[in-house]
Amino acid sequence: MTNLYDRHSALLARAVEALRTRAFWTPFPEVPSGKVYGETAKADGIAAFEGLVGNAFDMPGHPETRRVGRENAPWGKSLSITYPAADPATLIAASEKAAEPWASADPETRAGILLEALTRLNAMSFLIGHATMHTTGQAFPMAFQAGGPHAQDRGLEAVAAAYAEMTGSATAATWEKPQGKRDPITLEKRWRIVPRGLSLMIGCQTFPNWNGYPGLFASLATGNTAIVKPHPGAILPLALTVKVLREVLTEEGFPADVVLLAADEPGAEVTKKLIETHAFSIIDYTGSSVFAAWLRKNAGSALVFTEETGVNSITITGTDDFAGMCDNIAFSLSLYSGQMCTSPQNLYLPKDGIETDEGAKSFDDVVSGIVDAIDRLLSDGAQASSICGAIANAATFARVEKARQAGRVVRESRETGLGASATPLLVVADDREGGLERDECFGPVSFFIACDDAHDAIARASAIAAEKGAITAALYATDGALIEEAANAFSKAGVNLSVNLTGNIYVNQSAAFSDYHVTGANPSGNASLTDTAFVAPRFRRVMIRWPRAA
Amino acid sequence: MTNLYDRHSALLARAVEALRTRAFWTPFPEVPSGKVYGETAKADGIAAFEGLVGNAFDMPGHPETRRVGRENAPWGKSLSITYPAADPATLIAASEKAAEPWASADPETRAGILLEALTRLNAMSFLIGHATMHTTGQAFPMAFQAGGPHAQDRGLEAVAAAYAEMTGSATAATWEKPQGKRDPITLEKRWRIVPRGLSLMIGCQTFPNWNGYPGLFASLATGNTAIVKPHPGAILPLALTVKVLREVLTEEGFPADVVLLAADEPGAEVTKKLIETHAFSIIDYTGSSVFAAWLRKNAGSALVFTEETGVNSITITGTDDFAGMCDNIAFSLSLYSGQMCTSPQNLYLPKDGIETDEGAKSFDDVVSGIVDAIDRLLSDGAQASSICGAIANAATFARVEKARQAGRVVRESRETGLGASATPLLVVADDREGGLERDECFGPVSFFIACDDAHDAIARASAIAAEKGAITAALYATDGALIEEAANAFSKAGVNLSVNLTGNIYVNQSAAFSDYHVTGANPSGNASLTDTAFVAPRFRRVMIRWPRAA
Repeated sequence: MTNLYDRHSALLARAVEALRTRAFWTPFPEVPSGKVYGETAKADGIAAFEGLVGNAFDMPGHPETRRVGRENAPWGKSLSITYPAADPATLIAASEKAAEPWASADPETRAGILLEALTRLNAMSFLIGHATMHTTGQAFPMAFQAGGPHAQDRGLEAVAAAYAEMTGSATAATWEKPQGKRDPITLEKRWRIVPRGLSLMIGCQTFPNWNGYPGLFASLATGNTAIVKPHPGAILPLALTVKVLREVLTEEGFPADVVLLAADEPGAEVTKKLIETHAFSIIDYTGSSVFAAWLRKNAGSALVFTEETGVNSITITGTDDFAGMCDNIAFSLSLYSGQMCTSPQNLYLPKDGIETDEGAKSFDDVVSGIVDAIDRLLSDGAQASSICGAIANAATFARVEKARQAGRVVRESRETGLGASATPLLVVADDREGGLERDECFGPVSFFIACDDAHDAIARASAIAAEKGAITAALYATDGALIEEAANAFSKAGVNLSVNLTGNIYVNQSAAFSDYHVTGANPSGNASLTDTAFVAPRFRRVMIRWPRAA
Repeated sequence: MTNLYDRHSALLARAVEALRTRAFWTPFPEVPSGKVYGETAKADGIAAFEGLVGNAFDMPGHPETRRVGRENAPWGKSLSITYPAADPATLIAASEKAAEPWASADPETRAGILLEALTRLNAMSFLIGHATMHTTGQAFPMAFQAGGPHAQDRGLEAVAAAYAEMTGSATAATWEKPQGKRDPITLEKRWRIVPRGLSLMIGCQTFPNWNGYPGLFASLATGNTAIVKPHPGAILPLALTVKVLREVLTEEGFPADVVLLAADEPGAEVTKKLIETHAFSIIDYTGSSVFAAWLRKNAGSALVFTEETGVNSITITGTDDFAGMCDNIAFSLSLYSGQMCTSPQNLYLPKDGIETDEGAKSFDDVVSGIVDAIDRLLSDGAQASSICGAIANAATFARVEKARQAGRVVRESRETGLGASATPLLVVADDREGGLERDECFGPVSFFIACDDAHDAIARASAIAAEKGAITAALYATDGALIEEAANAFSKAGVNLSVNLTGNIYVNQSAAFSDYHVTGANPSGNASLTDTAFVAPRFRRVMIRWPRAA
């Protein structure tokens, strides 16, 4: 056995340091370039991907009573890959059987194995990029980043946060209590890190790796075994992840079944059956608030971490770069056709318009500015496709169609010409009781909402975040007092606020080691990636103490 | 305004350090001595206590629509103190009104105020000792320690853990992302600590301060307001605490209502009404598993921390100090008449007896050794009273009576002669299906259980801990392999294990800054005092980011 902890300890220490400073850092380059990943990496990745398509996915030693696999084809390319499957009881029994040696390994051993797996996954980022692209509908550049290096960052971040927490207090101490003139009472104490038990990670359709890695790697780092339940439409990215983890585990003498795959098919999902066994001590979930509520009700004593539904907003009260603002918003609304948990949905602006570097702009001027910027951005079909990607779920098209009735359509959703696509639909909301803009409308749909003034805009955007949840909020403002007002309002609503973004940085973006993704302070979820609260309760400490021999 | 953080920052830093090293440390002397607390402290404490008895408790500015107070009198001295009371809606409105300034204060300001309050409470430890004694039934020495310095230690520990967590990662960063040959993207980021909201601390009857301070001080340190709901039988220790906190808050320019008292009377408890408002974001509870289960079901989205029911054990497989072992166990079983959450209940030993320094001892020899040691320890009425204290709750007498039917009574429970008292009842359990020893039997009751051999004894003691919960376990063994076997078994059951304790240190004792009290890894609760998981989710971080001006 190699000592994987020694191999990766400098990386781990650097990651722990980055978590504390919150400055920019990543060990996993985000550019899909041969110069970084090797001249043949691109071709190798495509070849490896094509080698998987149409075949039975090989997962040596995995419990298997049948094969399943009916994944998405948002770009029109059917994967037709089958994965090993077994009933919940079989998977749980295998996970329990693997629990003891993994729980007994020390934090260093576990961290070494997980960092080795992340490093190998990083080297496979082109393959993972194609796997992510053809299951989620992301365009390749995003799929490469979100399925590869950015997800690996989040996984490393979780391992680092867990490791820091497990090693943050002494595991051995001599406790010497003075007794006045008598000899002190002296106890030797030792603490063990004890995992909670079995963990279940329920993946989502749009960001299987990015949203899945934090919970998965945090649970594994703290000694729990893991069952990975991918969305039936997006299995391959997580199947590759599970496979690599199992390979490293096996090489290091641990049971491969420390990590298992619970693949299923649309209409025959095993999620509820898994949860109803009450075998899990930890459940990580990304998806709708409706299912999250079911989960909390049925999870028994399991710890439940979620990322859920929300209504993200942009509040526009003024700008000294009108063109830059419109371009920035246009990109944010178009990127992956609004299928990011960080995509803005509602745009709040004063009904009487705003002041800008181009002079006063009426409400309709601002609307037009943004609509025009989107039209410019997406005028070329290939470029539109490379930004918007494809639609992961057919239900999204129905939502787009329904959203047209929420008010005055100021930009129609169109196809890009590639895959199952839909560019942003923009609607000036009628803004009536029970309007569609009052809830999450997942997909390429945004609503303009006319407000009394800038204060009202801030109040309404922050109020819906507090009520319905929100992961991101953006603000455009030139007045310092107004920015402070917004900072207070959005902070109270528990949502991270990006102010006056222009150029090549977007409200949608959340960087590991710096941005906590989801604050946990509003209904959009309690899984803050990655704070201590996300890792600390995944394990406990148990002591043994005895008198020191005199 | 004084700068209380400056005044106490060295103490705070030392406490944070102690949490990491887990070695012995306390700033609050546990000896009720005039040499430590001042020559007049004892007399002053009694005078202050007598000045409260029979009067209306003064709590300036506290919401009050009526007066309540019908506390315990386990020593026969009726307090007849009345406390201000108001309905839940009034208390919650007052708490919400006080929330904003407290949430906006920085962690240093809050820590300074809380440490000042703990320091003042420490100076009042004689008064608090009498308040604790006459509500809980503890003998004065224990009441002084458990209500005073030991509780203050736990409060300080919670503040330190919360402070360390709030300040453990940067609250400001410049995030500079390289862009190849172009200028980097540079964002300024700031994070705010945002509290969850209103917290409710539900106190217990036997250790109102010791069990109450951790949750109360952790919630306050992280910026939440707090409502303190004492057990109706033991209000005074927590009323004094609330009063001191309100005084310091007021002096420092904060609303006193950051901390409120929700006093009530037996038979008219307000706990359920408070919880059913769903106004609380955090609930801390110490008490029965039955009520804890109700709490979890009805707490809405509140974070719930509990210390619950459990079955603590002593496993006896051998000893090289039979007399010392029997004396140590005798004290552990007698101390506060088994009314500690750390008191041992079940004694597991091989049916064929054990090897000792006095030669082989049969099962009955061991039983007799312990019974005789108790009889010796409690032979003098005054000493018996100073160890056993009084019984806090009349229901305990009924449990003692019922426990006599669980098997062969080998020691009858008796009165000490002072207060409502009961010395340990010892029963050799029939050990049948559904026997009383299979559940917590709170009070001065212990069961001997005959096991096949040492391995069986370890297996049964650890199995009941895993199933029913346990906060402590003790083991007597001379064989290293057996100790290792027990270490593994109890660690898996999530219970802290004390091995071969003799002399002046007992399994019942849990020292702040070193012993994590409750592991969270079995059904006896999830509130591990004080680990990061206990403090980290009480607040969240919210960011604001903006491009750095070029």
